[in-house]
Amino acid sequence: MEWNKAVQQMELLQKKKYALTCASSSLYLDAVTVAPKNTSEGRGVALSILAGEEQKLMTSPETRALLDELAEHLDELDLVHRREVEELRRDQEQLARIPAEEYMAYSELTNRASDVWHKAKENNDFASFCPVLQELVDYNRKFAGYYDASKKPYDALLNQYERGVDMEMLDKFFAQLRQTIVPLLKKIAEKPQIDDSFLHNYYPVEKQKAFADYIMEVMGLDRGHCGLGETEHPFTLEFNNKDVRITTNYDVHNVASSMFSVLHEGGHALYELGIRDDLQYTRLAGGVSMGVHESQSRFYENIIGRSREFIGAIYPKVQEFFPEQLGGISAEQFYRAVNKAQPSLVRTESDELTYCLHIMVRYEIEKQLIGGTLEAKDVPAEWARLYREYLGIEVPNDREGCLQDSHWSGGSFGYFPSYALGNAYGAQMLHNMEQTVDVAGDAAKGDLTAITGWLREKVHQYGGLMTPADVVKNACGEFDPSYYTAYLTRKYTELYGL
Amino acid sequence: MEWNKAVQQMELLQKKKYALTCASSSLYLDAVTVAPKNTSEGRGVALSILAGEEQKLMTSPETRALLDELAEHLDELDLVHRREVEELRRDQEQLARIPAEEYMAYSELTNRASDVWHKAKENNDFASFCPVLQELVDYNRKFAGYYDASKKPYDALLNQYERGVDMEMLDKFFAQLRQTIVPLLKKIAEKPQIDDSFLHNYYPVEKQKAFADYIMEVMGLDRGHCGLGETEHPFTLEFNNKDVRITTNYDVHNVASSMFSVLHEGGHALYELGIRDDLQYTRLAGGVSMGVHESQSRFYENIIGRSREFIGAIYPKVQEFFPEQLGGISAEQFYRAVNKAQPSLVRTESDELTYCLHIMVRYEIEKQLIGGTLEAKDVPAEWARLYREYLGIEVPNDREGCLQDSHWSGGSFGYFPSYALGNAYGAQMLHNMEQTVDVAGDAAKGDLTAITGWLREKVHQYGGLMTPADVVKNACGEFDPSYYTAYLTRKYTELYGL
Repeated sequence: MEWNKAVQQMELLQKKKYALTCASSSLYLDAVTVAPKNTSEGRGVALSILAGEEQKLMTSPETRALLDELAEHLDELDLVHRREVEELRRDQEQLARIPAEEYMAYSELTNRASDVWHKAKENNDFASFCPVLQELVDYNRKFAGYYDASKKPYDALLNQYERGVDMEMLDKFFAQLRQTIVPLLKKIAEKPQIDDSFLHNYYPVEKQKAFADYIMEVMGLDRGHCGLGETEHPFTLEFNNKDVRITTNYDVHNVASSMFSVLHEGGHALYELGIRDDLQYTRLAGGVSMGVHESQSRFYENIIGRSREFIGAIYPKVQEFFPEQLGGISAEQFYRAVNKAQPSLVRTESDELTYCLHIMVRYEIEKQLIGGTLEAKDVPAEWARLYREYLGIEVPNDREGCLQDSHWSGGSFGYFPSYALGNAYGAQMLHNMEQTVDVAGDAAKGDLTAITGWLREKVHQYGGLMTPADVVKNACGEFDPSYYTAYLTRKYTELYGL
Repeated sequence: MEWNKAVQQMELLQKKKYALTCASSSLYLDAVTVAPKNTSEGRGVALSILAGEEQKLMTSPETRALLDELAEHLDELDLVHRREVEELRRDQEQLARIPAEEYMAYSELTNRASDVWHKAKENNDFASFCPVLQELVDYNRKFAGYYDASKKPYDALLNQYERGVDMEMLDKFFAQLRQTIVPLLKKIAEKPQIDDSFLHNYYPVEKQKAFADYIMEVMGLDRGHCGLGETEHPFTLEFNNKDVRITTNYDVHNVASSMFSVLHEGGHALYELGIRDDLQYTRLAGGVSMGVHESQSRFYENIIGRSREFIGAIYPKVQEFFPEQLGGISAEQFYRAVNKAQPSLVRTESDELTYCLHIMVRYEIEKQLIGGTLEAKDVPAEWARLYREYLGIEVPNDREGCLQDSHWSGGSFGYFPSYALGNAYGAQMLHNMEQTVDVAGDAAKGDLTAITGWLREKVHQYGGLMTPADVVKNACGEFDPSYYTAYLTRKYTELYGL
């Protein structure tokens, strides 16, 4: 085969992969937004076939031959094509190890599991989800071996979401976090509680929608390329760097819920919209990893969004949207309310300080599930035990306990730690950003241009061109969680006068 | 290859085709409902690849060999599999004649054309759409040869939407219609005009939405399987017989617009939802043709929906939704208003009597465009000439003229006549239905069970199991447009006291 032709064929291969991903994403987006209730069966058939087609595309003898040939000439390729070959070969080798029937059956299972979980959560009925959860765990244990048989199963899964991360590293990371967070929480408990009751006044949905539009505007999100929808669980979905969708959920008794989910998902969206054009429709389009993605979302949600400076900048406008609810509340009161630290049951509603403790609970349970030392049926008890140990609270039911998150029903085991890693990456990025950008000053003006510019230059643009660890290193040096623990200590010591 | 195995492989082939169709449909649905404005480029890439994959799937040597083998044993197959083989071979032979590059380029063109047309219509700027229209015409002239080189090009296109129909048949059909409609219109013009001004009071969108829900309920549409969305141009989209979406458009100054579009699209939806389960995921799932589909939609919209009996049945409820707007209006006044006959500019807002004249304008223009005797640039003048001749009115601009319909921008030439055929099929079905169902009596009770039951038994269930002509024949004997002209004559003679 001629040289140029092989590269062209690889580009076509990637476009096909892109088209199949678009297709599944679109069906998923439809499912969680407007699809009628009883339509999952036919969609499941389509999704499982599309997944099968993607596997077949990636593992066909022609694709293998093409990538093998390109791999022999890596040195002659430019950086982008070289990285494409590397990542595609990785995908291919992994996929080739998964039997096609198992791959399609798993795709059907996750589609079904999502329904079962939804109903189980609605009815607070863990028993109905339990067998499906066990099936999902069993598949993931098996798939871990296909991904990388040289690793422990849970390490192999972790590596799928954040390459290079393993239990040894995470055990240390989480221990260090706990050593910072737990004493802070103890001291906070002895201080007077912050009043956040005004966040729970009645906030009409229409006003919250207009407020969400305003937040997106402040973030510099171009609505011609970034949609905002409504779903039970907020998420970001990217088709390409010119077409990203975020969703939020409006709670009339919690103005902070939608506000911070828009900041969070908006951070994900800025990442996707900032990826270089020449990576589009290739394997390198899209954020490099879950951890790096969360570093961006939580940067905007917490480091910027929950900063005194940013709140001060937007607060006059916030009061304009909600004059009755917030007329008598100062920016400082609002700032303190959205930063109130208090152990709670639900991860997505937890504060910046306790958030990682929620992650640790899930991490410990996943470790045992995938390690084979815990069965699905024992998850509720273990969940309760860990919430007692880490957060000091009792879990009254499974709906607010182990049924709260959608991740497991979607087959994601090993994803949760990315949230904690993202927090830590973000704090380290902040430290480096501050060397050249007046972060606090800009936030105080509500001007995020230079901040987003820095992230775009150091992180966003690269997509999957570098590995996650290299993206972090490129942006802020060797990963070091101390920046995050220092950030939390500084913020909460000041806030509560510890 | 073994016998069973070949049949199984054909089933898998059809499921793949189904999955690819689901994918494209989902992307299309997204595009016309929630997608951000500037995202068509990336979606176009995906859609064109998916179209290419479908063509490749259908024309691969393996598929050809499989279908050829099955074709040799047609007599040994059951009816369903036999019909699948026949239709799949037809598709395959057609597709195989279209060069892959042309097929994908055309898919990209229609995606682009849709955007161009939208903007052109918005700006009343035919010049910007003209070159794209000519491109679309040129492609369709060429494709007509691929479809069936033995036919005249426009006959080949007509045959794509309604098999067995050609210009010779349509010329006669339309002449017969004109001979009925034009004299009726002349007589109506001499009579006092019907007052329909109350239809154009202010009708709030939220109330219209609740009204639309009510209409769907009366039609027996199960909302767990049939969604209702909002788009500029109402349409029906089916994923399978358990998942159908209809859309409507709410005009605050026209309560009839959404009401009758829901009845119309609801008729399409009932057809799709009524197709047999054993045809799902096969080539025979889905309504058999555009003409038969329109017979169903226009049956509910006009024959039932615009009948005095049905209006009488639902009118108390209509008044409940709109007490201020319709409190002083009687059911008879409402009935007369929604049946007011008057030549107008816009097809989708035209009345039951003049509707087919709008279709004839398009038919005559398409005949010339595809016949090569008219160029795109001359369409506006020809449009104006024909509206003058057929409807006796002047076309003031292209927005309400030749830019009003989306069909040509989507590449559909030969589709329009299906609307007129559907009207005529429907009137003939009514005649036969009345032999066993008390149509007027049931409509007067607002009970459509037996009516839908008849259509389900005679039409819906078969999907593509029979040809369009056979479906019509099975439901009501050899096609005869006299039932339709008699229906129109009866209805409008009574209504206007002619």
